[in-house]
Amino acid sequence: MNEDELVTAIAALTDGTSRVLIGIGDDAAVWQPARSQRSVISTDALIEGVHFSRAWMSPDDIGWRAMAANVSDLAAMAARPRLGTVALGVPPEWTPQALLECYAGMARCARAFGLQIAGGDLVRAPVLTIAITVVGEVRPSNLKTRSGARPGDVIATTGALGASRAGLDLLQGAVRLEPTLAAAALAAHRTPQPRVAQGRWLGASTHVHAMMDCSDGLSTDLARLARASRVGASIECVPIADAAAAAAAALGVDPMAYALAGGEDFELLVAVEARAFARLARLFHARFGQALERLGTVRADERVVMVNQGREEPIARTGWDHFSQ
Amino acid sequence: MNEDELVTAIAALTDGTSRVLIGIGDDAAVWQPARSQRSVISTDALIEGVHFSRAWMSPDDIGWRAMAANVSDLAAMAARPRLGTVALGVPPEWTPQALLECYAGMARCARAFGLQIAGGDLVRAPVLTIAITVVGEVRPSNLKTRSGARPGDVIATTGALGASRAGLDLLQGAVRLEPTLAAAALAAHRTPQPRVAQGRWLGASTHVHAMMDCSDGLSTDLARLARASRVGASIECVPIADAAAAAAAALGVDPMAYALAGGEDFELLVAVEARAFARLARLFHARFGQALERLGTVRADERVVMVNQGREEPIARTGWDHFSQ
Repeated sequence: MNEDELVTAIAALTDGTSRVLIGIGDDAAVWQPARSQRSVISTDALIEGVHFSRAWMSPDDIGWRAMAANVSDLAAMAARPRLGTVALGVPPEWTPQALLECYAGMARCARAFGLQIAGGDLVRAPVLTIAITVVGEVRPSNLKTRSGARPGDVIATTGALGASRAGLDLLQGAVRLEPTLAAAALAAHRTPQPRVAQGRWLGASTHVHAMMDCSDGLSTDLARLARASRVGASIECVPIADAAAAAAAALGVDPMAYALAGGEDFELLVAVEARAFARLARLFHARFGQALERLGTVRADERVVMVNQGREEPIARTGWDHFSQ
Repeated sequence: MNEDELVTAIAALTDGTSRVLIGIGDDAAVWQPARSQRSVISTDALIEGVHFSRAWMSPDDIGWRAMAANVSDLAAMAARPRLGTVALGVPPEWTPQALLECYAGMARCARAFGLQIAGGDLVRAPVLTIAITVVGEVRPSNLKTRSGARPGDVIATTGALGASRAGLDLLQGAVRLEPTLAAAALAAHRTPQPRVAQGRWLGASTHVHAMMDCSDGLSTDLARLARASRVGASIECVPIADAAAAAAAALGVDPMAYALAGGEDFELLVAVEARAFARLARLFHARFGQALERLGTVRADERVVMVNQGREEPIARTGWDHFSQ
């Protein structure tokens, strides 16, 4: 069983009734506390040795990244972050000081994106375990899910991919980069910026049909978007972050792997009505000073392919899957 | 640093602004999504080897208990359970089937108390790690916290304590009990029943000034209630579950320890206006067929004592504290 198969089996155990409008399988679940309002809830767990290592991350950065991953799930639903809870499993070798530094990183990231930490739980665990749940709010008409992509839509991201993975290469000593690129790669890995403002802005456009974040690598996330929308995708070009391109060149590997398998980029992946894309991209650039990068188009059959000089090749899922063998 | 000191240090890192009305330190946090409504959020983590062991619990029971612990936090705020998220960290030796059984236990408990599992996260971890977050709703006027107890109030619980600990003794083979008591002890430990209906009923009374659940053992939880309310408590009698009394007798230990240190009983601990107690207890019994058990009274000084034949002895905190040495 891979991760998506397990999620499907789990979803079958829960019943999709009541005021929960969108349940297991999207970036976040949605419910309706009042008629004119949607609340969005999402949870993400990070485990020491699986998602991060103290060998190359400070407790403060570990905290920031854990919170950013959760906030990014709200951004992907076009929601405004409101509050969160933090369950921490703490191993004996983490001193109270290191723990509080980690918590300070979480609180700093939360504050930067308007979210308040409202509660939590502290327990003993064999390795540091961070489970965060976040709640956001969104106007019903602005809510975006993974399942709205339509054939013909333009597929785009809010930025270039792969910088976080290049940062990990740097921290692990696998590669050296010139100072500007190194700084960008390290920042992308240590203190990633969830695209909250971009998500809310894109959510306000009726031309944006589907949205999710790229946290598990483009190849995996694109397959999830396509499956949720029962469509396919033809990708023509993938925007690679400069730092990722430089790291790939230094290591003699395909830079595309940094975007397809890299993960933890937190850029948003959107499907946009084709005839509206040029104008939306222009407005996006004017608003955020960055490009809404065109990757390709949504296709009606359910194949996800890379188009290269007219030839189509299936995109293998090389991104993050906790339960693949 | 013990658990409560760490929680205080953590609370200082988060800012108590915005519409979050009650933050870190109560059973659950409260916020206001709309003017006439309060939402309640709580999170609890359970770690294999710390909170449970597969040696004496089935995956299904582990799931039920994890969900029950969270639902109980909503009951303690007089809230109605609405939805929850589940973050699971899964070690390699847990098969997908065992994992789905555990999830089925959670879903069964959730359904029994009207809560829908709306989302989650699945990650790899060295031991099974269950972090659940639950959301409930409560009318502003019915919300109860730990901090409202007043000198003179009667302290009471919704039932006798210690059965869960007796169940653990049984499962560990430390003791044998006659069949009826054994069944009660095992049920209390494996499939505890959070007091949701009782909590909502008590929340509707303006004579109930404070409420929390007894999940960490009466001695620890009573100290927390007293500290939050800046009061003390004189305890005159503690209701001990029959199974706990029998287990204590068989082992030749003080049955009081089962209530004071036992933990995971999920009965509610309340502070009730003294002149209203007798009538409330009568109505409670008529409604639920069980006694609202009187333990003692709230006192103005901040001492928490056991009164025994006129002598006062401080109650040491022998309950569950993850961070005590």
